Amino acid sequence: MDKYYIDFDFERPLYIQISKHIKCLIEKNDIKEGEKLPSIRKLSSFLDVNKDTIIKAYNKLQTEGFAVQKIGSGTYAKKRDINLKFKNEYSKMFKNLSPDLLKDYIDFTGETACSTYFPVKIFKKVLNEVLDKYGAEAFVYKEGLGFEGLRKSISYCFWDEKLDKDDILIVSGAQQGIDIASKALINVNDNIIVERPTYIGALSVFRWRRANIFEVEIKNDGIDINALEEILKKNRIKCFYTMSYFQNPTGFSYSLEKKIKILELAQKYDFYIIEDDYLSELIYDDKIEYCSFKSLDTNDRVIYIKSFSKIFLPGIRLGYLVSPKKFKENMQKSKINTDISTSSLMQRALDLYINKGLWDEHVNFLNKIYYDKYTYMIKMINHNIKDYVEFYEPGGGFNIYFKILNDDFDSVKLFYECRRRKVLITPGVLFYKNSSDGNKFFRLGFSQLDDNKIEEGIKIIADILKC
Amino acid sequence: MDKYYIDFDFERPLYIQISKHIKCLIEKNDIKEGEKLPSIRKLSSFLDVNKDTIIKAYNKLQTEGFAVQKIGSGTYAKKRDINLKFKNEYSKMFKNLSPDLLKDYIDFTGETACSTYFPVKIFKKVLNEVLDKYGAEAFVYKEGLGFEGLRKSISYCFWDEKLDKDDILIVSGAQQGIDIASKALINVNDNIIVERPTYIGALSVFRWRRANIFEVEIKNDGIDINALEEILKKNRIKCFYTMSYFQNPTGFSYSLEKKIKILELAQKYDFYIIEDDYLSELIYDDKIEYCSFKSLDTNDRVIYIKSFSKIFLPGIRLGYLVSPKKFKENMQKSKINTDISTSSLMQRALDLYINKGLWDEHVNFLNKIYYDKYTYMIKMINHNIKDYVEFYEPGGGFNIYFKILNDDFDSVKLFYECRRRKVLITPGVLFYKNSSDGNKFFRLGFSQLDDNKIEEGIKIIADILKC
Repeated sequence: MDKYYIDFDFERPLYIQISKHIKCLIEKNDIKEGEKLPSIRKLSSFLDVNKDTIIKAYNKLQTEGFAVQKIGSGTYAKKRDINLKFKNEYSKMFKNLSPDLLKDYIDFTGETACSTYFPVKIFKKVLNEVLDKYGAEAFVYKEGLGFEGLRKSISYCFWDEKLDKDDILIVSGAQQGIDIASKALINVNDNIIVERPTYIGALSVFRWRRANIFEVEIKNDGIDINALEEILKKNRIKCFYTMSYFQNPTGFSYSLEKKIKILELAQKYDFYIIEDDYLSELIYDDKIEYCSFKSLDTNDRVIYIKSFSKIFLPGIRLGYLVSPKKFKENMQKSKINTDISTSSLMQRALDLYINKGLWDEHVNFLNKIYYDKYTYMIKMINHNIKDYVEFYEPGGGFNIYFKILNDDFDSVKLFYECRRRKVLITPGVLFYKNSSDGNKFFRLGFSQLDDNKIEEGIKIIADILKC
Repeated sequence: MDKYYIDFDFERPLYIQISKHIKCLIEKNDIKEGEKLPSIRKLSSFLDVNKDTIIKAYNKLQTEGFAVQKIGSGTYAKKRDINLKFKNEYSKMFKNLSPDLLKDYIDFTGETACSTYFPVKIFKKVLNEVLDKYGAEAFVYKEGLGFEGLRKSISYCFWDEKLDKDDILIVSGAQQGIDIASKALINVNDNIIVERPTYIGALSVFRWRRANIFEVEIKNDGIDINALEEILKKNRIKCFYTMSYFQNPTGFSYSLEKKIKILELAQKYDFYIIEDDYLSELIYDDKIEYCSFKSLDTNDRVIYIKSFSKIFLPGIRLGYLVSPKKFKENMQKSKINTDISTSSLMQRALDLYINKGLWDEHVNFLNKIYYDKYTYMIKMINHNIKDYVEFYEPGGGFNIYFKILNDDFDSVKLFYECRRRKVLITPGVLFYKNSSDGNKFFRLGFSQLDDNKIEEGIKIIADILKC
């Protein structure tokens, strides 16, 4: 109890001093993550202040994310992120680098297909066909789930009609899908599980929902099932967020066995799986077969999210979400609350594009392009930085994830050194709940770069890691 | 305490029986809104069950929205909406009415400009110009705040450059603006104020954020300032959501005096104003001058939200948000979390459209069209239903709001009668926190209808109200 003692400055609000003091204790680890704070009664008598002052202080801690309240039990400490400063700087850097300035950099941070390969002429034709055919109608939305034609095409072309068109909800990209699913599914302080490491954008949504996040380490065939089951035995889990293919950032894909096992556990422990089907179109390794959680799901346990933006083009802002029947209505309400509806012109254009067989054609074309780029990337890595890092060959997607072997380097230091030499990488600290877990890791995305830039960039990184 | 007594059925989970029983008491008004529930200790000893059972029951009540927890104080009853069933039916009706079926109805529920007047040919030209000029670049987003060109044009054309382009955040319509502002501003159980009645979509977002909603009655020159100040004196308010012109549903606009007064109060009581600038482009009455809260704001108290979709076309999904400096970064993060970015092609097209002076031209054209429609609507009302209703002439916008004078009618009954005769209206119950407050009101929107339909529809409503 002694650590809670405060030498009050009576000129300033006491509750702020108390909450500051406790924040400080949490940050110095004098109060551990999940440690119970003293009861209001106890602390108020110990500090000789009014009960209301303690209540105010605990409320402030909760608002700022340093504490959680559990009904009938008390208030518990919650840790905040130590790399917050770096994270803010990292995100600001991209805001401040204008497209012109960015051109001077070799940018390994890209996560989406390169605009060079976008079939702009063909898409323009398709857009005009839609405008000629539908006129102003093309700009009107009438269907809450999204344009019916597109939903039919998705079911027909991507799911062999095994999905009902009315189970599909059109969304403005995968990020919105994750946001909508969270709103419909997750309440404050609900327990959820993510892979360690995981996608920053998802982590961020779950944090904004104020969920309690558990991490389970991902291996090259999927997450550690034993660790998962340990968590499930002890906690009531609402959902598990996963990227089934070429996981971002690791590039790992799930084995069939693990997918089946996780689906069984979902049924047994009554949780749901949010499957972010990230880049499964780009498979370079013949041994990898495509089979989503959703397609294996017999108990309606999977919320399936697919983006068209990542592979097509980010500015298209299109994707879809398939929900278990149980949440369907809630998902639709959540979508309406979020932005009412997705651009109807784009929906119609994509529909026509898919129906003409152009989507498949484009995906085949991209597979060839990116297969070559991937092969070259792996070659450059092997030639130049193999001795300084451990890495995994994902066999698909856009990213390679590295572990730094050199003891003197952490990923934030590497980031700054690289940036000084006009190379941009993504340090691992961004992908973990406790960012220090990512100190030795970094991600390189090759989708935006040509072979020369890849070679040049990798050589600069090698040069830095060598020191 | 006696009312809490339960004759348990020991075959079924006790906590569910307890939460059901309490729900029932709340619905029957045996437990009043805001009444404190017994402490966990008391109720567990009274019902002779384990404390954990009560905790589980209270958690369930909270999750379902029948209770709120206050740190250090206890659990309090919260009322749920009695017209929930009708609301669900109403929203389902629109999901189930396909565009084809809807054609048989005279639909007074529309809230946006009619597609007939959308300049599709001109917009198509603009789209093609953008695609020719930028190619695939048009589909790429690089700027977190939205396309810089469009932000510049907004500042230049709509704000005489009094707004910094970097204070503008492009969003996918006003609904998304409200969602983003809520995420950035409002935490669980924060107090907020809305107008009574108010826009359904905003009410719904605030409910999903689990805010505590206060209502202040709106009069024909803005909300009741005394009632506002009473609330401000007693409660710590986070923000006030308002539609400054042609409020939805009432059609009321704020007087200059009230706007100034509310801005003063915002400064004095430290709250923020979310100004949803709804349809201020369509002013039919010369006496109404345009002057937003934002333009009067000297203390950076206003979050200004503007939609381009309502007046242009819903399927465009474009709008913008201007945030106080304090929240700027949070708003941008909230936008990224929500859907990363808004369709970049549409942003560029709208930018070009505005720059060519086509936007102003279009707005002038719409003003003429809708002025005529409005005048005809008022004429028909005066000729046919004046004796059965009270109503206000808004002098702008798309909606007229009515109070039913006939004691035998409430708005839900009127809705069903109208629907039976193929006329769709929006009953007032949707616009209030406690929906029964809207029992005697309904809204007619005339934007989607031609003169014949307006006449036919109003005559049918007259016929029904006559009985």
